[in-house]
Amino acid sequence: MSEAWDAETFLARLRDEGGPRYHDRHPFHVRMHEGRLTPGELRAWVENRYYYQTRIPLKDALILSKAEDPAFRRRWIRRIHEQDGTEDGTGGIADWERLAQGLGVDLRALRSFSRVLPAVRFACDAYVALVRESPLVVAVAASLTELFSPALMAARLAAWERHYPWVDRAALAYFRTRIERAKVDSDEAISFVLAHATTRELQERCVDALVRKAEILWAILDAIERAPREEER
Amino acid sequence: MSEAWDAETFLARLRDEGGPRYHDRHPFHVRMHEGRLTPGELRAWVENRYYYQTRIPLKDALILSKAEDPAFRRRWIRRIHEQDGTEDGTGGIADWERLAQGLGVDLRALRSFSRVLPAVRFACDAYVALVRESPLVVAVAASLTELFSPALMAARLAAWERHYPWVDRAALAYFRTRIERAKVDSDEAISFVLAHATTRELQERCVDALVRKAEILWAILDAIERAPREEER
Repeated sequence: MSEAWDAETFLARLRDEGGPRYHDRHPFHVRMHEGRLTPGELRAWVENRYYYQTRIPLKDALILSKAEDPAFRRRWIRRIHEQDGTEDGTGGIADWERLAQGLGVDLRALRSFSRVLPAVRFACDAYVALVRESPLVVAVAASLTELFSPALMAARLAAWERHYPWVDRAALAYFRTRIERAKVDSDEAISFVLAHATTRELQERCVDALVRKAEILWAILDAIERAPREEER
Repeated sequence: MSEAWDAETFLARLRDEGGPRYHDRHPFHVRMHEGRLTPGELRAWVENRYYYQTRIPLKDALILSKAEDPAFRRRWIRRIHEQDGTEDGTGGIADWERLAQGLGVDLRALRSFSRVLPAVRFACDAYVALVRESPLVVAVAASLTELFSPALMAARLAAWERHYPWVDRAALAYFRTRIERAKVDSDEAISFVLAHATTRELQERCVDALVRKAEILWAILDAIERAPREEER
């Protein structure tokens, strides 16, 4: 087995393999940020990404369940609180529900997952399965698409405010909150991965997990892009 | 398949199958509460049960990872905070470490799990595996040994204060805290199980899980009781 990469090389590998595969380059995202999505396309995106949002606390709980160190758990558990909130109507999932409602999506239909495309479900479930089946550091590495997400989230917020003025600005709270949170979260995750992936084998598994995660996000957009739209039927 | 039991019958089944198997009747526990354990036996118990304590947040995280309802997760996550605390030195695991130190156990040796008996490790790991492999309501039902624990914890506190006066009373904080917490926790768990085990099949799986959990706690005491003691060597 080869020697472990030093921290700089390892971080560069993660960025070089993850960055070009990140879904900011997906044609659907490009069109979104150019203001060229129809309301129906935006709604489909929000309805399908909602399923992804609801998987996040489950995968973070799986990460907790692999962590022997109470200090790590005390830090990571914050992610579950941020997504679930402290009471009804708070937290990331509730923010996403307000985004959907701002686009005219019915809350009951959203929560029923009835508009979630099969391929989106498979991709999101594959993320949870990847985390479930990986050792802790590899599971954490899968979350490192966060390295690239603050820039995407900031661009998205600007693009939506400019191109989709019919969406209430208050509905965009999720994006605003995530810009800062993703930075904190990714700093925490990258520190942990650099410190704990101490063999070349583990480092390569971390890179593979990040690639797989990027493929999952990409596949979600592929499915949404190719699905027939209500307004096109 | 038979009809589902009504709530009263189901609760009676849980109590009737779980109660007689609960480890308060184990000879080792009986001797503990009669003041007949040697310091070495008490230390062995505390060192081995520590491994159990450290598994609790992991199994609770697995329960979280199965729960689709954010409101349920917001309630259940409290258990992880109670065991892990809000910072170093707080929470149930830290309380257990102080108990061990009150008995003269070295903290580093405790945390290394080097004194954990193989059979104790297998039993505790079997609990985590039971939770991992069960549907949510069955996993929650496995925690229902809490129904019987406030009485045991109160008796234990009184017995230790009476029979083992050489153990600093401050070291017994874990037992004091758990008397109240176990009541709240078991009320919450039993409400969930009664509401969500809605078929006879699920109800029977819940009873089986509680029996299995009681067997696990019993097996831990069996292993500790049978192990050679330092002072006996």
